[in-house]
Amino acid sequence: MKLATLNDGSRDGRLLVVSRDLSHAVKAQGVNTMQQLLENWSDFEPGLQQQYAQLNNGELSETLFFDPAQVMAPLPRTHQFVDGSAFLNHGNIMEQAFNLTIKNEDNRPIMIQRQGDDFRGPCEDYPFPSEADNGDFEGEVAVILDDTPMGVTPAEAESKVRLLVLMNDVSMRAHLFKEIQLGFGFLLAKPATVFGPVAVTPDELGEDWKEGRVHLDMNVSRNGEWFGNPNGGEMDFSFGELIAHLCYNRNLRAGMVLGSGTFSNEKYNKVGSACLAERRAIDVIECGEPKTDFLHFGERLRFEMFGRDGQSIFGAIDHRFVQADTKR
Amino acid sequence: MKLATLNDGSRDGRLLVVSRDLSHAVKAQGVNTMQQLLENWSDFEPGLQQQYAQLNNGELSETLFFDPAQVMAPLPRTHQFVDGSAFLNHGNIMEQAFNLTIKNEDNRPIMIQRQGDDFRGPCEDYPFPSEADNGDFEGEVAVILDDTPMGVTPAEAESKVRLLVLMNDVSMRAHLFKEIQLGFGFLLAKPATVFGPVAVTPDELGEDWKEGRVHLDMNVSRNGEWFGNPNGGEMDFSFGELIAHLCYNRNLRAGMVLGSGTFSNEKYNKVGSACLAERRAIDVIECGEPKTDFLHFGERLRFEMFGRDGQSIFGAIDHRFVQADTKR
Repeated sequence: MKLATLNDGSRDGRLLVVSRDLSHAVKAQGVNTMQQLLENWSDFEPGLQQQYAQLNNGELSETLFFDPAQVMAPLPRTHQFVDGSAFLNHGNIMEQAFNLTIKNEDNRPIMIQRQGDDFRGPCEDYPFPSEADNGDFEGEVAVILDDTPMGVTPAEAESKVRLLVLMNDVSMRAHLFKEIQLGFGFLLAKPATVFGPVAVTPDELGEDWKEGRVHLDMNVSRNGEWFGNPNGGEMDFSFGELIAHLCYNRNLRAGMVLGSGTFSNEKYNKVGSACLAERRAIDVIECGEPKTDFLHFGERLRFEMFGRDGQSIFGAIDHRFVQADTKR
Repeated sequence: MKLATLNDGSRDGRLLVVSRDLSHAVKAQGVNTMQQLLENWSDFEPGLQQQYAQLNNGELSETLFFDPAQVMAPLPRTHQFVDGSAFLNHGNIMEQAFNLTIKNEDNRPIMIQRQGDDFRGPCEDYPFPSEADNGDFEGEVAVILDDTPMGVTPAEAESKVRLLVLMNDVSMRAHLFKEIQLGFGFLLAKPATVFGPVAVTPDELGEDWKEGRVHLDMNVSRNGEWFGNPNGGEMDFSFGELIAHLCYNRNLRAGMVLGSGTFSNEKYNKVGSACLAERRAIDVIECGEPKTDFLHFGERLRFEMFGRDGQSIFGAIDHRFVQADTKR
């Protein structure tokens, strides 16, 4: 099942059921918002699956053309958002290039608490104040969970995954290096996060959702040119393992969003990267200095994943970075 | 105006207007939840102020006795929660005792992104898995904001403060020292946060809400014995300054909660502390080793602030720490 949220001017938007080929959509019956669905999944999911089947079979009359420019993030805001950094290859490249040492004595999965009140849709211009902030992107997938209690095992945790989404974890690297030294996590380094047009139930990925990982390529292009296509199968921690770590002493509530971390593969010389910071680190390793620029105003980024049938799974994040119109 | 949220079994509870002396309450007219109020403040605030005046004047008939054991956190969940650490005195004591050095080259206010999906009420038992996690508390106040755009000044930011709340920022110190070294912020170190019974509009503090600070004592007792009463006036950054820092490159949405950090005063030998970690650090400075235990299961903590008239402002957080009933 594929779901989206129409931007109707409200804070939570209007839930849509979207056809598998992303061509058409229809307003969800019986439930208005994604958050309401997530809080009452077993009540609403069967009816929506039926609506989805009818939409795919062309049995519904009052359908809309699905336009990614008219949707918000599938879940426009949430009460808890945590981003993992589950591809250790990414961290290894960064440490090697910049002589960093992350002190992680008991090999904890790295996860970062994030804000959930201002998610951005897939085609919105993304404003930031200054190019000197060293703007960057990170191509990721995220899971959206049902209620998940303290103390779950990784296997139990995976059974709580209701939806998968595509995201661009926008990052401001000039602040990241300062904030990581400070030790209290990221604020200015990680402003609002951008999500792909539709959220999908795990069955939409078929065999490519297994071992708590998405075994598909993250296709990233910058200004229309290939930037990378690393695969999600190389996550060193599964989503289940990340969730279980987090649930050691907390409950997670329906609608919790957990990101994978930027996709990163060992064979980066073949598949490229999903963020500029890693590409710049590879520049340093290969040439002694970074040769890849951070984001300039006006640049356009695109992220998309395709299934084995060549069909776009989530639709594309396709957006421009622009100068913020603020007073300071 | 004082507001609370009745625990009616729903995720967001039922908004109550509470009398100034905290003796009586009545269901809010026209608006069901705190989040709805915050998203439509100017629509609902005048009516609630009228209801509050009538309640205080004994003009309402169908009132309830106000029982803090029956309320949730005033805002039971939010889409963004950030905790400051705005009393530099606290950090200085910690650095002195444990030979820590926080690398903060440009004197940024320290702020920590936190989870907002599982706030706890003032009298709920607080379960945690193991005493070896070194359980601790932190007595704080927090502000709840209206929509606040990217780029605000500190003065504009303060004008967005709609409510003040009392909180216990529960902390697990065994994880905190590991996570601060890792550099990505707190997860296991900072599980669910506990809030006092009522939220109040700033005018309830009179002259004691000024310069973006609460100039009142945080009275903390442990198992019925005085632990500390540091004053909130010694915040080194005002709430306005903290918000402006955060808004450099992000918008904040209505319902955003921002904590002060644990209260801490220079004359700690006179007023004590609002957390165990600081008291243990003072032990180290004074005696060479910590003499104060972290939390044991069964311990009871109480936090309360009083106005100049001796009236409890927020009611008390009064709760027990207990062993979590989880499988692992």
